Amino acid sequence: MSGKGAAAFGESNTISRHGAFGGAVSFHRHEAVETACAMRFSVFLPPQAAGGRVPVLYYLAGLTCNEETFMIKAGAQRVAAELGLAIVAPDTSPRGVPLPGDSENWDFGVAAGFYVDATVEPWSRHYRMYSYVTCELPALIAAHFPVDADRQGIFGHSMGGHGALTLALKNPELYRSVSAFAPISAPMQCPWGQKALAGYLGPDRDRWRAHDACELVRGLETVAGRPPMLVDQGLSDPHLQKQLSPERLEQACAASGYPLTLRRHAGYDHGYYFISTFIEDHLRHHARSLLA
Amino acid sequence: MSGKGAAAFGESNTISRHGAFGGAVSFHRHEAVETACAMRFSVFLPPQAAGGRVPVLYYLAGLTCNEETFMIKAGAQRVAAELGLAIVAPDTSPRGVPLPGDSENWDFGVAAGFYVDATVEPWSRHYRMYSYVTCELPALIAAHFPVDADRQGIFGHSMGGHGALTLALKNPELYRSVSAFAPISAPMQCPWGQKALAGYLGPDRDRWRAHDACELVRGLETVAGRPPMLVDQGLSDPHLQKQLSPERLEQACAASGYPLTLRRHAGYDHGYYFISTFIEDHLRHHARSLLA
Repeated sequence: MSGKGAAAFGESNTISRHGAFGGAVSFHRHEAVETACAMRFSVFLPPQAAGGRVPVLYYLAGLTCNEETFMIKAGAQRVAAELGLAIVAPDTSPRGVPLPGDSENWDFGVAAGFYVDATVEPWSRHYRMYSYVTCELPALIAAHFPVDADRQGIFGHSMGGHGALTLALKNPELYRSVSAFAPISAPMQCPWGQKALAGYLGPDRDRWRAHDACELVRGLETVAGRPPMLVDQGLSDPHLQKQLSPERLEQACAASGYPLTLRRHAGYDHGYYFISTFIEDHLRHHARSLLA
Repeated sequence: MSGKGAAAFGESNTISRHGAFGGAVSFHRHEAVETACAMRFSVFLPPQAAGGRVPVLYYLAGLTCNEETFMIKAGAQRVAAELGLAIVAPDTSPRGVPLPGDSENWDFGVAAGFYVDATVEPWSRHYRMYSYVTCELPALIAAHFPVDADRQGIFGHSMGGHGALTLALKNPELYRSVSAFAPISAPMQCPWGQKALAGYLGPDRDRWRAHDACELVRGLETVAGRPPMLVDQGLSDPHLQKQLSPERLEQACAASGYPLTLRRHAGYDHGYYFISTFIEDHLRHHARSLLA
């Protein structure tokens, strides 16, 4: 059973710890600087972590989800234990810092941070999930858990798929692998994305481009050295047409020559039964880069 | 994608349906005669069900759980799809029939039916989970889903482990395989069991014996033809000593010559990370009997 890293993080920061597949899932809480509030996250350490640092995958969850959703629903631990991959899942927004209007919509505010740094009041003080996920959390993880910060990958679902794609595209030096389940591929072009980007960044659409995967792909000077994207999409997903638009990502990648594997699956919807079906493929996709 | 069985059950009885591992998880609701209320259950049909009737495993969940818990947390579908096993998970009690005191305790009443037929007022009208699970639900499943009622197995967790063991021991003609995760092995000897058995069956302990796995094992005239039991127990389970007592089951099986494989796992607790780690072993254990 691995986990000395979790112990090193401090018992006061550890909410619970659960043996799983020879490793352990643990839940933690800390006072985050970026979001200026207490943040929660979960960690899976594979058994290999007992013997040294292992590569680490960051998983970004979707609207309404939290740091537990992926760990308890995706069935990822079996293959992560086999491959020797750690997984870290942050929460999806600041919590416990009541702001006007933060809980009136399930697609904005609490549990809907959209992995950007808000620039508009009243969100700009706490809603800094971009910096939290790319900088603060990885530094904390590398300091306290047996992971190799030079071998990081990122993936996510829906809003978190948007997060994974944009964070990877903006930070090629941080993430050596990337994938997504049913991502919001073009937030500038869909209601969820427009609401979030306008709310957190203001009405100037030029400021949104830095958080739109399609815009980022189109803006790349070169795709040399970029990690290939794996994207899975269910064709029974009720959000497919209006919110997700994988064809836009497909077109952007084709235009830029970005290596994308986009798989469309008949009969699968937007939920974790879909994710659990294809999670093994994603973990092996990441392992090909992280364990190379 | 299989599921014509679910369609045959009627759209009005189908709450949702989700593709998973080439088959589908579906959620259903029906007016149950035994419990005299609407009951919910979930079904996983493997891809093989599209081509004919498949064996079926009934999973009984524990205290506070419902018909969704196992399907979304246990990670069972991958191996069930490989083996061609259907899985049915009923709810853990009647719901929506308010009775005095049914929601004041998390270990009695709602979500705590204990898989007995209550004989004491006010519980006796609705709290008939024994007959519901052994008779009414399997008849409904066999009538509307592509399962083979001659190849049924049963398993469960905690309170549902108690249910699985006792239902299998009392009905060897119904269940050809049995297993349990962290079962309440001797409910007559532990606080959860004593509270439930006294509450549903009254103070006469002689009436409790028919719902205590250890008592049932000790009372067998012969173990010939009985399916072997697989029981997994985490050694970091906080309920191990006070509520679960696997050693009592071990002793009863040894005394009766009942074939029991009891595995104790260091570092594992009472939750679904534990269950997900060992679910594959349980499904293969059942498959050895059901696919023989």
